Amino acid sequence: MEVINLKDKLGKFPGHYDPKIIAELNGQHVKLVKFKGDFVWHSHKDEDELFFVIKGSFFMDLRDKTVEIKEGEMIVIPKGVEHRPRADEEVHVLLFEPASTLNTGDVENEMTKKELEWI
Amino acid sequence: MEVINLKDKLGKFPGHYDPKIIAELNGQHVKLVKFKGDFVWHSHKDEDELFFVIKGSFFMDLRDKTVEIKEGEMIVIPKGVEHRPRADEEVHVLLFEPASTLNTGDVENEMTKKELEWI
Repeated sequence: MEVINLKDKLGKFPGHYDPKIIAELNGQHVKLVKFKGDFVWHSHKDEDELFFVIKGSFFMDLRDKTVEIKEGEMIVIPKGVEHRPRADEEVHVLLFEPASTLNTGDVENEMTKKELEWI
Repeated sequence: MEVINLKDKLGKFPGHYDPKIIAELNGQHVKLVKFKGDFVWHSHKDEDELFFVIKGSFFMDLRDKTVEIKEGEMIVIPKGVEHRPRADEEVHVLLFEPASTLNTGDVENEMTKKELEWI
C-alpha cells in the first residue's frame, strides 16, 4: 500500500506514447503516458479507455469530430470507437483501462508497446 | 463521449462523504467525493479501491499505520483491508472502483450511500 506520487512517477521516463504502469486494481491498470505529436488511428475491441489530463492538453480525433481535453478533464472512449490522440505540445495523461489493453488496439506498428514497464 | 471537467463537477455538490458518479467504464465507476472529518472504519470484501487526491490532503488510517495522501498522490486499498479516511480540512478525491462498491463496505450506518447520483 504505497502512496503513489504522480509527479515523481512522471519524472522517471522521458518518452512519448510509451505508457508505464503505476497501479493495478480489479484487473485494471492505471498508467501514465506523455503524448507529443500524432498517435495512430485505432480502436480497442473489448476495452473502454479513460484519458485524464494531468498537465497540458491534447486533441482526440474521432471519425466524426475532434475534441480537446484540457488539464483537469477526462474522456472515456468506449470499446470499438476509433480514435487518435494528437498533441501539439507535450501533455501528461493518466490512463485507466483493463490490464489486457494494448496501446495501439487493433493495429500493430512501430508504436505498439507489448510489454509495459512498471515504474 | 462527453469531456468531463472535474472542477465543474466538484462545483455541483457540497456534501462530505457523499460520492457522486462521473463516469463508467469496464464495469468500474469513476466518482468524486469530498472528505472532511472522520469516516467509518470498513473494508470491501470484493473490491480494490483507488483514492486520488485532486485538491488538499487526507489521512488514511490502517490498522497498523496511518498514511497521508496529498494532492497529486494516490493509494490503492486492496479488498479486505480495513481502512478509515480522515481529513482535518476539506479534500477533493477521485475514486476508481467497481460499480458494485458500497462506500461503507461491510458496515451499514448513517454514512452509507446506497443509491449514488450521477452528476
